Amino acid sequence: MRTHYCGELNSRHEGEEVVLCGWVHRRRDHGGVIFVDLRDRDGLVQVVLDPDRAEVFARAEQVRSEYVLKVSGRVRARPRGTVNPDLPTGEIEVLGLDLDILNPSETPPIQLDEHGIEVSEELRLRYRYLDLRRPEMQARLRTRSLVTRTLRGFLDAHGFLDIETPILTKSTPEGARDYLVPSRTHPGEFFALPQSPQLFKQLLMMSGLDRYYQIARCFRDEDLRADRQPEFTQLDIEVSFLDEEALMGIMEGMIRTLFREVQGVELPEPFPRLTYAEAMRRFGSDRPDLRVPLELVDVADVLGGVDFKVFAEPARDPHGRVVALRLPGGGELTRKEIEGYTQFVAIYGAKGLAYIKVNAWNEQGREGLQSPILKFLPDQAIDAIMTRTAASDGDLIFFGADQAQVVNESMGALRVRLGQDRGLLAAGWYPLWVVDFPMFERDANSGRWMALHHPFTAPKDEHLERLESDPGTCLSRAYDLVLNGTEIGGGSIRIHRDAVQRRVFDLLAISPEQAEDRFGFLLKALRFGCPPHGGIAFGLDRLVMLMTGATSIRDVMAFPKTQSAACLLTDAPASVDEAQLKELGLRIRTKG
Amino acid sequence: MRTHYCGELNSRHEGEEVVLCGWVHRRRDHGGVIFVDLRDRDGLVQVVLDPDRAEVFARAEQVRSEYVLKVSGRVRARPRGTVNPDLPTGEIEVLGLDLDILNPSETPPIQLDEHGIEVSEELRLRYRYLDLRRPEMQARLRTRSLVTRTLRGFLDAHGFLDIETPILTKSTPEGARDYLVPSRTHPGEFFALPQSPQLFKQLLMMSGLDRYYQIARCFRDEDLRADRQPEFTQLDIEVSFLDEEALMGIMEGMIRTLFREVQGVELPEPFPRLTYAEAMRRFGSDRPDLRVPLELVDVADVLGGVDFKVFAEPARDPHGRVVALRLPGGGELTRKEIEGYTQFVAIYGAKGLAYIKVNAWNEQGREGLQSPILKFLPDQAIDAIMTRTAASDGDLIFFGADQAQVVNESMGALRVRLGQDRGLLAAGWYPLWVVDFPMFERDANSGRWMALHHPFTAPKDEHLERLESDPGTCLSRAYDLVLNGTEIGGGSIRIHRDAVQRRVFDLLAISPEQAEDRFGFLLKALRFGCPPHGGIAFGLDRLVMLMTGATSIRDVMAFPKTQSAACLLTDAPASVDEAQLKELGLRIRTKG
Repeated sequence: MRTHYCGELNSRHEGEEVVLCGWVHRRRDHGGVIFVDLRDRDGLVQVVLDPDRAEVFARAEQVRSEYVLKVSGRVRARPRGTVNPDLPTGEIEVLGLDLDILNPSETPPIQLDEHGIEVSEELRLRYRYLDLRRPEMQARLRTRSLVTRTLRGFLDAHGFLDIETPILTKSTPEGARDYLVPSRTHPGEFFALPQSPQLFKQLLMMSGLDRYYQIARCFRDEDLRADRQPEFTQLDIEVSFLDEEALMGIMEGMIRTLFREVQGVELPEPFPRLTYAEAMRRFGSDRPDLRVPLELVDVADVLGGVDFKVFAEPARDPHGRVVALRLPGGGELTRKEIEGYTQFVAIYGAKGLAYIKVNAWNEQGREGLQSPILKFLPDQAIDAIMTRTAASDGDLIFFGADQAQVVNESMGALRVRLGQDRGLLAAGWYPLWVVDFPMFERDANSGRWMALHHPFTAPKDEHLERLESDPGTCLSRAYDLVLNGTEIGGGSIRIHRDAVQRRVFDLLAISPEQAEDRFGFLLKALRFGCPPHGGIAFGLDRLVMLMTGATSIRDVMAFPKTQSAACLLTDAPASVDEAQLKELGLRIRTKG
Repeated sequence: MRTHYCGELNSRHEGEEVVLCGWVHRRRDHGGVIFVDLRDRDGLVQVVLDPDRAEVFARAEQVRSEYVLKVSGRVRARPRGTVNPDLPTGEIEVLGLDLDILNPSETPPIQLDEHGIEVSEELRLRYRYLDLRRPEMQARLRTRSLVTRTLRGFLDAHGFLDIETPILTKSTPEGARDYLVPSRTHPGEFFALPQSPQLFKQLLMMSGLDRYYQIARCFRDEDLRADRQPEFTQLDIEVSFLDEEALMGIMEGMIRTLFREVQGVELPEPFPRLTYAEAMRRFGSDRPDLRVPLELVDVADVLGGVDFKVFAEPARDPHGRVVALRLPGGGELTRKEIEGYTQFVAIYGAKGLAYIKVNAWNEQGREGLQSPILKFLPDQAIDAIMTRTAASDGDLIFFGADQAQVVNESMGALRVRLGQDRGLLAAGWYPLWVVDFPMFERDANSGRWMALHHPFTAPKDEHLERLESDPGTCLSRAYDLVLNGTEIGGGSIRIHRDAVQRRVFDLLAISPEQAEDRFGFLLKALRFGCPPHGGIAFGLDRLVMLMTGATSIRDVMAFPKTQSAACLLTDAPASVDEAQLKELGLRIRTKG
């Protein structure tokens, strides 16, 4: 039906006769001539219709925004002075020789031809087919397609097989709530939609398939936080007979190839690595944003004896932590700004935000500092703080003092917030592996040991013997890949021995009966020649969001759901016939 | 952990030290030496362990079938006379210098080292991780991965974007039963799992994305016939601004590329085409197997007047059909064989299977024929039948006479069955487009018009005006791709005009209210500049089944379900906690 896409025309096509199909992005009448900006997937081109061809002109007079046209015409240079340097096709225009209206359009509720007019996300989701016509949305979906193509290309070339695993399956143990699917053939029983293909990919390794990948749809019925979706996509990978070094090496190569081919950027080789312990110590986070040039500095050792309970108590508490965070040039912060940050850290449970302004330390020493807490701090403590933080005149030092978890969360978040607010973020991409995670963490409420990753993660060989005697110090063979402060991937070497898996279940207080009921098939499979194996999964939505600079994963999905897990476009979920429920052996529970 | 895959070693590696990882396929002790056939994804290699290395030998003595080993050794030529020409690695063996048992195995319930021992499919599904270790299963999954890679490569190169559509969605109108997913955030309401992404891919065209594809999981809660699965995979495609000729051309190129790259076979260019009417007339089927060199021949016109009700009544009935089917060399069929075919056609509703044996027509004419019905047939009818079927001595002619649908189904099936039984199938691949389908067919029970494809299929432009006055003769812009008697793909140009869509809904007795409730969002989208568009979907499981020569789609899926839609491996579906049901606002319906 057409000879070219609109967006591909340029001065090299001058004089050619072309046929274009697309949407009326904008129509203007000027000097007795009609100008139509015609839009397709590739871009915009200006079509000019003059009254010389009366019949064509009469049709052109009918067109409105978002009409679908087929236009035949001749490419010509734009008259001097009307070249549009902002448009790839801006040097030329198409003189319209014929025009068919393929389909009219009602006035769209979303204006596509004006920038800067903010449309509510509700309207965008309800008329998603209009929203997706916007060039920036098309560019995001195009990038997403290119990202998956590039990832697949790399994995195919490295001997990975693309294998599909079931969507209708058994409840998986990721910890979140499952979506359930009632079975008609087994009334009263349910399938679960997978939170990840974790157990199936391990079974594929037990099947000898050696290297597996899948771009897999996953499901979590969670109360949706800021940027979660009930269904999301992960690049899921598993390999046999490789240790973590080898797997991480291949994955680095994949991500490096991705950024080279899609972004034209060379990532560092190798990616830097931090242990979990060091990441928490320096950044208060296991997914530190290395673009922010600020670090937490431990000062508990010099504050344990001061006459200021706010510092002294956590400094002496083995579960407490006291840190300083120097903000270069922070001396210029106003009282109001500092008050704002105090409210910010309160979100994370911090009870206050102490600080010292460094006005003239070099010349005046202690007299050159300004702080409500200065009076509590002896010279020795101040000297130590100033030395460790390498503070100098014009800086400000924030303090966090509380239970370690509160300090890490609040000061880790403050570090990133300050980096953003103060324009301190380095440009570019900062990937990072975080390794040496603890195997377990204690649940604050129940006091029970919980798996930090999932219960199939292998402990380090050398920690295996103290699994029961000192689980808190056992490290796992897990690894996370962090990019600019976002975890984009995570995985581990798995347990491949029946006996070890049972010991871990024991420690997690999963009884043999529960284990049998939930993972019996996996435990059984471990006894029939399970190879050493491990894997990783990447959050594709989040990765594409980062790469496209979108601010929400909803902007990199064609048909996302709202925060209440509804589709405004199709009006799903919806009620169903009583007959359907009856067939499934179900009844709607009445209130009360 | 390894230097090579087992299966890649050959005489070029002689003298090299290698490290292999894999499973013990077979262990034999012979002449004081242990032979281990070590297996991995790539194949088998023979490892020889001799008592010279006492410690290694002692470990080798412990190994049993399906133990996981890491073996270091040296590649050497097999001694003269022990070369195994059936094995790609059969010229060499690996002298084991070291051996680690990475994991032992209990005795597997499926023997993997013996061919010809039939294992029940139930056992295969329950221990799928063992079944998948069989080389033929691995080869199938590997081919499947290669098939999807090749299809994607073609589509990527042709400007198609890979776009994901939702799994949690609204009931789709494919006609089969939906799987439902209760919503926790909207109690009493349900998502449906998609039977296909049909409406979403049309919406993507309305979004201006121009060319879409997806390897999409689809779901149907049907009573599983022979070779259906509750979840299956289709290659889903949709394009804008292309007519059926252009789209079929691209798709032919894709399938031709696929068979060239995966099978090393050149398919015909272009693929032959049949109209629906011709396919039914000549083969009694809209998915004829062109490997079978037999055709139905209409003979109603010469039998309407005979004194034999079985023929005469359907011959005079406008809904009846009478055909002859000549089987070359069929004169040798025994009475018992003919009886068998009579029972076979009865499955399709045929009340009998008349036949004429052509013993000596050339010399004796009518006297040379043998048939219980001969006495009813005047010379003129016999002459016409013999001429039209081109029968000659030694042949047999079967007859079908009944309602056209019964004749088509029974004689179409008999045609294929005879082709198989009599070894008449041509070798190779016979693709075929079937086009010019009717828009509608009348439901036999209700008398209502039903869409032969789906209600979004466009009628041919030239039939639009008689849509209401004579729907039975309206043809659609649908097309099916048939390969060796199996429909592997089907699609259509869609309705892109609001008014036409409403007329089709009217004709299908879908009221405006029902249309609004079920497809309101689509009808609305049609009013905002919908481009002309169309698409196609290929059944990936079935295509891979054909290409791998598997006899069931279960053999080309890693984790299929049983005929009662259960997973024997994981024991899904399963019962869930009362608390989970409560959260979903559901109650199990008690009997009675």
